[in-house]
Amino acid sequence: MGLDLIILGAASATPTSNQYTTAQLLKMREHYFLIDCGEGTQKQLRRAKTKFSRINHIFISHLHGDHFFGLVGLLSTFHLLGRTAPLTIYGPPKLKEIVLTQFRAAGTFTSYSMHFVVTQHKVPQVLVETDAYTISSFPLKHRIATTGFLFKEKALKRTLNKPAADAYGIPVCDYHWIKEGKNWISDEGKEIPNGALTLDPPQPLSYAFASDTMYTQDTAGYVEGVDVLYHESTFCEDKKARAKQTMHSTAVQAATVAKEARAKHLLIGHYSARYTDKTRFEEEAKAVFSKVYAARELYQYSIKQSGIKVKSLAPKKDEK
Amino acid sequence: MGLDLIILGAASATPTSNQYTTAQLLKMREHYFLIDCGEGTQKQLRRAKTKFSRINHIFISHLHGDHFFGLVGLLSTFHLLGRTAPLTIYGPPKLKEIVLTQFRAAGTFTSYSMHFVVTQHKVPQVLVETDAYTISSFPLKHRIATTGFLFKEKALKRTLNKPAADAYGIPVCDYHWIKEGKNWISDEGKEIPNGALTLDPPQPLSYAFASDTMYTQDTAGYVEGVDVLYHESTFCEDKKARAKQTMHSTAVQAATVAKEARAKHLLIGHYSARYTDKTRFEEEAKAVFSKVYAARELYQYSIKQSGIKVKSLAPKKDEK
Repeated sequence: MGLDLIILGAASATPTSNQYTTAQLLKMREHYFLIDCGEGTQKQLRRAKTKFSRINHIFISHLHGDHFFGLVGLLSTFHLLGRTAPLTIYGPPKLKEIVLTQFRAAGTFTSYSMHFVVTQHKVPQVLVETDAYTISSFPLKHRIATTGFLFKEKALKRTLNKPAADAYGIPVCDYHWIKEGKNWISDEGKEIPNGALTLDPPQPLSYAFASDTMYTQDTAGYVEGVDVLYHESTFCEDKKARAKQTMHSTAVQAATVAKEARAKHLLIGHYSARYTDKTRFEEEAKAVFSKVYAARELYQYSIKQSGIKVKSLAPKKDEK
Repeated sequence: MGLDLIILGAASATPTSNQYTTAQLLKMREHYFLIDCGEGTQKQLRRAKTKFSRINHIFISHLHGDHFFGLVGLLSTFHLLGRTAPLTIYGPPKLKEIVLTQFRAAGTFTSYSMHFVVTQHKVPQVLVETDAYTISSFPLKHRIATTGFLFKEKALKRTLNKPAADAYGIPVCDYHWIKEGKNWISDEGKEIPNGALTLDPPQPLSYAFASDTMYTQDTAGYVEGVDVLYHESTFCEDKKARAKQTMHSTAVQAATVAKEARAKHLLIGHYSARYTDKTRFEEEAKAVFSKVYAARELYQYSIKQSGIKVKSLAPKKDEK
């Protein structure tokens, strides 16, 4: 259980020889969600040994190239791999036209159906809800229409406490009702409360993605109490004026949002290429909010109630 | 002098974790020409330490994604780098719309002007001609409108044979006329023929790019006598039927075109990912045409009249 987040790209603006632009893969309740898709995302997904067929939902925050120029290439590869499962793409209104124009020019129709869900950038919006999770978008404040995304697990049912059930001599055929939350009544009429027969399910977890955006007090309200907040931090404090001018954030501003939102952890990224040392972002953010991670490409962040474990997924023999 | 060709990507269909799709950089007479622009081309250009500002002409053969999905990202990076020099892009009719739709969606206008020159896929066409070179397109036979490109140096003027000029006591002020091809007449009225005072200029070189295409006898006619022909060879002989069906070529067919065209050298590429060993393509082609090179990514092919020199440009400490 828990969420696994893989950072595929954490650079802003433009890929460099060893950095990729924004893309993340979130694994939640056995589902794979791709968040943004900068140029080269499909290459990074391969390097992280991701099964492409597991991705059924793609979320695009906004139409600046560093957040979606890898999308049509990935969709094209899905087609070449013979995918048949439908794919849902959530993003701004123009995204559908951009994608379809390119497929039409190639004289190609995809082997699978694509569904486009248009995001609203002025109000929060539930995009998809199942028994297991809810995914919504929320407004961000950037130069063009931009949304963040909030991924929330739903609470699972309580699980049977087998030793307790055995101790009360409960027959297997009654387990079903107990898992549904019912108390149990013995043949003698004695009622055993459900809480004595079941265990608490793991607490549901949540992840919020906020990029690109300038600092705004509204963000904290949208992501209140989130387990992990990814908030862009394009600049350090030395470029605070530049951050405002370009409608981006500094590491301190990202940390301020995390603090205001009472997030459990903060992950920062979308670094400007002018900073070679990413620890500077981390240090500046820590002055405001202690539980900070500076996102690193091809690292997996395994999120549980107990905390975050970080490990590298980079192939040992890397690309030539 | 000579041509330098850098192979940025030589894979077909889709990038893999260690291969890039089609893109090449040709350096001819101090000019940089980018030929096709698969996803990740800008990353490869950086790894080859190319000055982006030197690229003023981009040629796109056709609108299958593996030949142009890196274009809009590169154009966007040019903008972010503050480019002001105009850029000319040669390609199929729909290319302009595809590019501009994406810039419009980002609310961005480029810092430089883009000129789109539409290629015709049914007849050969001179695209650009200067004192130094001629670049034309020629029809290829593929599933959608596709052209090859032919880059031809023009002959340079003859150069002064300084020792010969000195021996005849020719004053410096007359050098100009001699370089223009005139004979020289001494004060005594003796005429020295130009050939005795000048040296042959280096023979002009030429490069042809033919991808994607199935085998057709027409290709040889378009590239007759070319110094280096790059011809796609997606498959080996075992997949000859598949090559025909998908309108691609085998290594043997590429070699046949080189032979029919009396090309001096053949470069093959656009390999299907099913073949891990590229030497197989080379071996099969050599049975038909001896001077074959299997294109390798991030290798530079320095082309002179005397032959081709090959060297790796891959950074020593490669990307993480």
